Amino acid sequence: MNALENLIKQLSRLPGVGSKSATRMAYHLLKCDSSYNEKLSEAIGTIKEKIHKCSICGSYTEADPCPLCSDPKRDQALLCVVEQPQDVMTIVNSGIYNGLFHVLGGAIDPLNGIGPDDLSFKELKDRISNGNFKEVIIATNPTEEGDTTALYIRHILSGSNVTVSRLAAGLPIGGDLEYADRLTLARSIKGRISF
Amino acid sequence: MNALENLIKQLSRLPGVGSKSATRMAYHLLKCDSSYNEKLSEAIGTIKEKIHKCSICGSYTEADPCPLCSDPKRDQALLCVVEQPQDVMTIVNSGIYNGLFHVLGGAIDPLNGIGPDDLSFKELKDRISNGNFKEVIIATNPTEEGDTTALYIRHILSGSNVTVSRLAAGLPIGGDLEYADRLTLARSIKGRISF
Repeated sequence: MNALENLIKQLSRLPGVGSKSATRMAYHLLKCDSSYNEKLSEAIGTIKEKIHKCSICGSYTEADPCPLCSDPKRDQALLCVVEQPQDVMTIVNSGIYNGLFHVLGGAIDPLNGIGPDDLSFKELKDRISNGNFKEVIIATNPTEEGDTTALYIRHILSGSNVTVSRLAAGLPIGGDLEYADRLTLARSIKGRISF
Repeated sequence: MNALENLIKQLSRLPGVGSKSATRMAYHLLKCDSSYNEKLSEAIGTIKEKIHKCSICGSYTEADPCPLCSDPKRDQALLCVVEQPQDVMTIVNSGIYNGLFHVLGGAIDPLNGIGPDDLSFKELKDRISNGNFKEVIIATNPTEEGDTTALYIRHILSGSNVTVSRLAAGLPIGGDLEYADRLTLARSIKGRISF
C-alpha cells in the first residue's frame, strides 16, 4: 500500500466518511497549502494529550475542572444529565440552559453489553447527595436506550430531594405533520400540553 | 480557541465536511484508540513529502516515473487525457482501459482565470510529437469547461498523426429516462448510435 492509499484508508475510518469522500479529501490534501496539512496533522495528533475528561462532570476539557463546572455564574442548583460529551456542547450552544452538566458516557444498552456499572451513575448519585441541586433534567436521547437510562436515573434518585424532569419529545419546530414518523406523532399526542 | 475547537475548525476545512460532521469526527478522535490518531496524523502530515507529481504524466505517485508510465504491459500507443490526478485512479479502477495517461491539471476556465498556459498542453504536444501514440482519448468532464478543453486539445493536435476521440456522453447505466436532465438527454439523442 502506498502513502496515498494509506491516507485514504485512514481517512475512511472517520465517522460518516466512505471511500469516495476519503479519496476526495486525500486529493484535496495533496493539492492544498502544506501549512494546512501540518495544522490538521498537529491538531489530530495532539488532541488526546490536550483534552481530557473533566473530573466533575465527565465532559471533555483542557482545564480540570472544566470551564462550565468552574463557572460561578451558572445555576448551581440545576443539573442536566446527558449521554455523551458532545451533548454538552449541543445544549450549551442552544443558549437556553444555564445550569451544570453530568455526562454518563453512554446509555444503558444490554444488547451491546453496556450496563449501569459502565456508566457514571455512582458519580451522579454522589453529586446529588453532596451538592445543593434542586432539579435534575434528564437529557438522554429519545430512543429505547435513552428511555431506559432515564427510567434508571429516576429510580436511583427516587430517595433524594431533587425534582427530576426530562426533555419534552414531540414534533420538531419547523417540521411538517405530514412527514412526522408514527412514534414521534404518538409521543406528541400523548404529551400534548394545554393551550 | 481551545484544542477541541481548533481540531473541529481544521477538520471542517476538508471538502464535504461541515461543522456538524467535523464535530462528530473530533469527538470520534477523542474517543477512539490513540494509535489511530497517530496513524491519521502521520498520514496527513507526511503525504506531501511522499507523494509527488509524475514527471511524465502529471498524476500523483511515490516513485517517478509513476507505476503506470513505467509499466511496459500498458498499451504505449494509447493516451488518455484527464483534468485531474484523481481521474486517473477512477479510470484505472474501471478496469476497461489499458493505455497511458496525461493529466492536464484542470480545465480551461476563463471565468476563474485558468487559461491554456496554466495547464500542461505543451507537455501533451511534446509527448505526442516524441512518442508513438496512435490514439488520444479525451476524458475531460462533460461540462462547459471540459468541452472547451476538449476542443482546444483537438485544435492543438490537428497537425499530428493521432486519432482523437472523446468519452461518450449520455444516459448513465442503470439510470431512469424520467430522471435524466435535459442536457444529458439532449446529448444522448444527438449522440445516438446505430443499433
